[in-house]
Amino acid sequence: MSQHSNGPIEAVEPSKAQLRSVRRLHQRKFRQQEREFLVEGPNAVREALNHDDPGLVHAVFVDPESPEAFDIIDMAQRRGAPVQATTGRALAEMCDTVTPQGVLAVCGHLDVEPDDIPADAKLILVCARVRDPGNAGAIIRCADAFGADAVVISADSVDVYNPKVVRASVGSMFHLPLVLGVQLDMIIGDLQDRGFQVFAAEGSGEPVSQLASDGTLARPTAWVMGNEAWGLTPEDSVLCDRSVAVPIHGRAESLNLATAAAVLMYATATAQY
Amino acid sequence: MSQHSNGPIEAVEPSKAQLRSVRRLHQRKFRQQEREFLVEGPNAVREALNHDDPGLVHAVFVDPESPEAFDIIDMAQRRGAPVQATTGRALAEMCDTVTPQGVLAVCGHLDVEPDDIPADAKLILVCARVRDPGNAGAIIRCADAFGADAVVISADSVDVYNPKVVRASVGSMFHLPLVLGVQLDMIIGDLQDRGFQVFAAEGSGEPVSQLASDGTLARPTAWVMGNEAWGLTPEDSVLCDRSVAVPIHGRAESLNLATAAAVLMYATATAQY
Repeated sequence: MSQHSNGPIEAVEPSKAQLRSVRRLHQRKFRQQEREFLVEGPNAVREALNHDDPGLVHAVFVDPESPEAFDIIDMAQRRGAPVQATTGRALAEMCDTVTPQGVLAVCGHLDVEPDDIPADAKLILVCARVRDPGNAGAIIRCADAFGADAVVISADSVDVYNPKVVRASVGSMFHLPLVLGVQLDMIIGDLQDRGFQVFAAEGSGEPVSQLASDGTLARPTAWVMGNEAWGLTPEDSVLCDRSVAVPIHGRAESLNLATAAAVLMYATATAQY
Repeated sequence: MSQHSNGPIEAVEPSKAQLRSVRRLHQRKFRQQEREFLVEGPNAVREALNHDDPGLVHAVFVDPESPEAFDIIDMAQRRGAPVQATTGRALAEMCDTVTPQGVLAVCGHLDVEPDDIPADAKLILVCARVRDPGNAGAIIRCADAFGADAVVISADSVDVYNPKVVRASVGSMFHLPLVLGVQLDMIIGDLQDRGFQVFAAEGSGEPVSQLASDGTLARPTAWVMGNEAWGLTPEDSVLCDRSVAVPIHGRAESLNLATAAAVLMYATATAQY
């Protein structure tokens, strides 16, 4: 390493224009207009820098007092991402969290078109009108863990580029193709045309354990999860091939959305691997 | 119904002493001293009133403007629980949430001794040093959904009577036996003596899908879940018979605690039913 990169890094105050252009990405309107979003914290920023698309990260801001500063600056430079050392105070002004973790990146949108879902995909998760940012992020994280080939978030859902979703996905949104804003009937028809069996996740459906043991889940499978409060509408449910439930053995009325999705994907991945 | 019970209910301001005795249950020290805790919202209070022990609910406070007021008052009276109509303002002062739901109950502690775990129990969840209230509540809810026969929360864990845990359990803590504050080595030895196989949930373990397909999980099984940040310590892990993992197929580093517990309990319940 050169003397320069080992020496203390000097923090530069961002200009007012720079601060404004970052801060307005807290609003959905500007995220859509600029096709950019914010990623906070060293772990998530590392996943963004590791993304297949080397141009995904438009800018990285680092507090040189952060323990991970050298590592992130080095990584950003190797990936060709513009990086700027800035003060903790300026970073706090840019961030959504009350305790920013010393690293912030501005990234370009990464969603893909339905046609970009890999041809050999076998497990896809479709969220219909998911509204809670924490749920949406947790579901993306689960889909990544169980090896799903893509996550589809329908129109009328939470904005996946909302900082709360990004945080709850713990970097997983950079790991698998995301399809956003599609109409549910379009994507379900599309997946059926491609040979997927499309199952509605509904408490009243057949038990998933049955479909796991009779071999059904070994086929390419897409799960459609409804809204956290009201589930799937009857109109959405009839678009699917079958209704399937996580069997409830006890007295709890329901599972939360991410937990139900995790069990359905676990059962499918186990049948497919 | 009598004229009286159909007429408007008059709200009575609680005395200062009453307010104080409720409010101090927000502190763990007083919850332990009084062996009481707070339950907020009509759904959870209904579950408390439905508990096997008719003396569990020591007091119910209801805002008569709440849409569920008549129903809760009627239910409390039938169960012999003291009920008092009070103002929304007083309820807000008593509650932990910023938007109290018009109903609050003071309940006695409901944890049981390890010997009280049913003799025919087949599925038990043990949480070792779980610290996050939301996780603890979500795990209790999952255990209830998958028909677990008991949940054990070890010493050095979050207080299960913390209002955040109560809220996240969505009434499930009233549905199954809870054993609290035990030393991990004691309870694991106890369960082994009773014929349970005790499995440590650890990312490095054998895949649970393997144990599901080879028939192992059909036997009485206890799952030991570690802390959300650092998992199980090596000392805790060696107490268990085997290490077992939820298989991760994708690039996510881990699942959250409640999701992992849900998958392990689903696999076990499916093998046992």
